[in-house]
Amino acid sequence: MKFRDAVGLEIALRMCEAAIRQATREGALVSVAVVDAGGHLVTFQRMEGAEIAGPVLAPGKAYTSVAHRMTTADLAPLAAPGGELYGLAGDRFVCFGGGIPLWAGYGEGERVVGGVGVSGGTVAQDVSCAEAAASVWRTG
Amino acid sequence: MKFRDAVGLEIALRMCEAAIRQATREGALVSVAVVDAGGHLVTFQRMEGAEIAGPVLAPGKAYTSVAHRMTTADLAPLAAPGGELYGLAGDRFVCFGGGIPLWAGYGEGERVVGGVGVSGGTVAQDVSCAEAAASVWRTG
Amino acid sequence: MKFRDAVGLEIALRMCEAAIRQATREGALVSVAVVDAGGHLVTFQRMEGAEIAGPVLAPGKAYTSVAHRMTTADLAPLAAPGGELYGLAGDRFVCFGGGIPLWAGYGEGERVVGGVGVSGGTVAQDVSCAEAAASVWRTG
Amino acid sequence: MKFRDAVGLEIALRMCEAAIRQATREGALVSVAVVDAGGHLVTFQRMEGAEIAGPVLAPGKAYTSVAHRMTTADLAPLAAPGGELYGLAGDRFVCFGGGIPLWAGYGEGERVVGGVGVSGGTVAQDVSCAEAAASVWRTG
Repeated sequence: MKFRDAVGLEIALRMCEAAIRQATREGALVSVAVVDAGGHLVTFQRMEGAEIAGPVLAPGKAYTSVAHRMTTADLAPLAAPGGELYGLAGDRFVCFGGGIPLWAGYGEGERVVGGVGVSGGTVAQDVSCAEAAASVWRTG
Repeated sequence: MKFRDAVGLEIALRMCEAAIRQATREGALVSVAVVDAGGHLVTFQRMEGAEIAGPVLAPGKAYTSVAHRMTTADLAPLAAPGGELYGLAGDRFVCFGGGIPLWAGYGEGERVVGGVGVSGGTVAQDVSCAEAAASVWRTG
Repeated sequence: MKFRDAVGLEIALRMCEAAIRQATREGALVSVAVVDAGGHLVTFQRMEGAEIAGPVLAPGKAYTSVAHRMTTADLAPLAAPGGELYGLAGDRFVCFGGGIPLWAGYGEGERVVGGVGVSGGTVAQDVSCAEAAASVWRTG
Repeated sequence: MKFRDAVGLEIALRMCEAAIRQATREGALVSVAVVDAGGHLVTFQRMEGAEIAGPVLAPGKAYTSVAHRMTTADLAPLAAPGGELYGLAGDRFVCFGGGIPLWAGYGEGERVVGGVGVSGGTVAQDVSCAEAAASVWRTG
C-alpha cells in the first residue's frame, strides 16, 4: 500500500472499475464519478444502458461528499425534513446515498482529498458500488 | 459606539474576526461572509481546513438573512414542510441557522443594512459564531 | 472493424486512451470527454496535473460538436465576429478547436451519435488529441 | 521566507491588504479575492465604495487564473476575436487583466495552488493591485 495524498487518474480509474464490477454483480447500471479535493472531476464512467441522470448525479454526489466531508448517506437525514440542514438539497448538493469522501493523512493532518459518487441503481446499490470504489482508495 | 448605517469593510473585518475567535473557542472550522444591503459580499474568510461548502453556504446565509430580513434560523421552520414558505429553500435561499441580518436606524427608519453568514460547524456552532459577529455590529 | 451505432463505454475508454497517448507524445496535459447522441457524458479522464478548466471545457466541446454536428474548430470562424453564428459562444457552447462529432451510418442514415472533446493543451494539441480519439471511433 | 504549498487564510489576508494598499495609492476602489487550488474562495474584501460587480468579477478572475494557469491579462488576447480561445469569456471565465495564478514547488513539482483576482479600477489598476498581492505570495 502506497501513501496517497491526492486523487490521480490511475487510482481513480481503478476505483471506477471496482464500482462497475460491484454494479455488475448486483445487476445495476450505474455512473461513477471521482473528483479531487476541489470537487473537480478526475474521471467519470457510465455503463452502457445507465440513465442520463448519472452524469449529473454521480459527480454531484462526489462533489457533495467533498464539500461537506461526509458520505451523502450520512448527510441525507440532516438534509431531510426535520433535519438541521433541511433545504440543503438542490441542484448543487446531492443529499442521498452514493457519495463518499476520500481521506488522506493522519491525526491533525487528516483531510479530505477527493470523493467518489455513484448513481443509477437503487440508493443501496449506489452506496455499495461507491463503497467498493472507496475501498480501492483505502487499500489500493 | 458609533452610529452605523452601512456595512463598511472595517467593521466587516472585525465581525469576521469575532466569528473566527468564537469558532476557535468551539473547535469548529468555519467560513464567514458579511454582505451589504444589496446582499453583495463585503468580506469573506475561510479558516484553514474549513470545508469548500463554506464559500457557497456562508454568503448564501448572509444573503438570505438580508433578503428575508430575519435570521435563517427563524426562517428554517417557515421553509420546512408545513411551513408557509415551504419550497423557498434551494440554491438561492439557504434556510438553516447561521445567517443573521444587520439592522440600523430606529423606529420607522429601522432597516436591514447587511447580513452575516457562517457555515462549516454544526448549525448550533454556526449560529453562535454568527451571533458573535452580529454582536460586534450592534456594539462595535 | 465492427459496425457501431452508439457510443458505448468500452470504445469510449479506448478513445480516451488514444487521446492521452497523443497528449503524452506532444508533452501536453489534457482532459478528455466522450459524450453520447444526447450530448451526455459517457466517460471523462483528466491527466495528472491537467488544469481544472478541463472538466468544464472538454465536455463542453464534446457536447457542442454533437449539438452543431461539426467540429468545434469548424464552428470557430462561424461564431467569431462577422461569422453567421456570432454570439453563439458562451457558457453552453464552446466554440474553439478540440471537439469532434462521431458519425455512424451511411447515406441518408448517416447521423451524429456522439462526440469527443479535449482541453488542456494548445488548441492545436487539443485538436490533435481529439483526432486521435476520433480515429479510434472510425477504425476501432 | 517560508515555503508555502497551499493558500492559507493568514497569507491571503496579507495579500488583500497589499492589494488594497496599492489601490489606495492609485486612487482606485477595488474588490480583492484569493482562491485555493480548487478555485474556491479563501478570502474576499471589497473597499468602501467599490462597485457591486466586484463580488462577481474578482473571484471570477482568481478562479480563471487557476483554471487556465495563466494571468487573465495573458488570457485576454487569446480570448479576443482572432484569438485561439475566442468565445471562452462568459459567465464562468473572466478574460481580462486582474487575475494572477499563485505557484508553488519547483521543476516538475511546480504547480498552481491558488489565485488572486482584483476588480473595480481600470484594468491597469486591477493588474497592478493583483501584482502587489501576488508579490506577497512570492516573498511573503
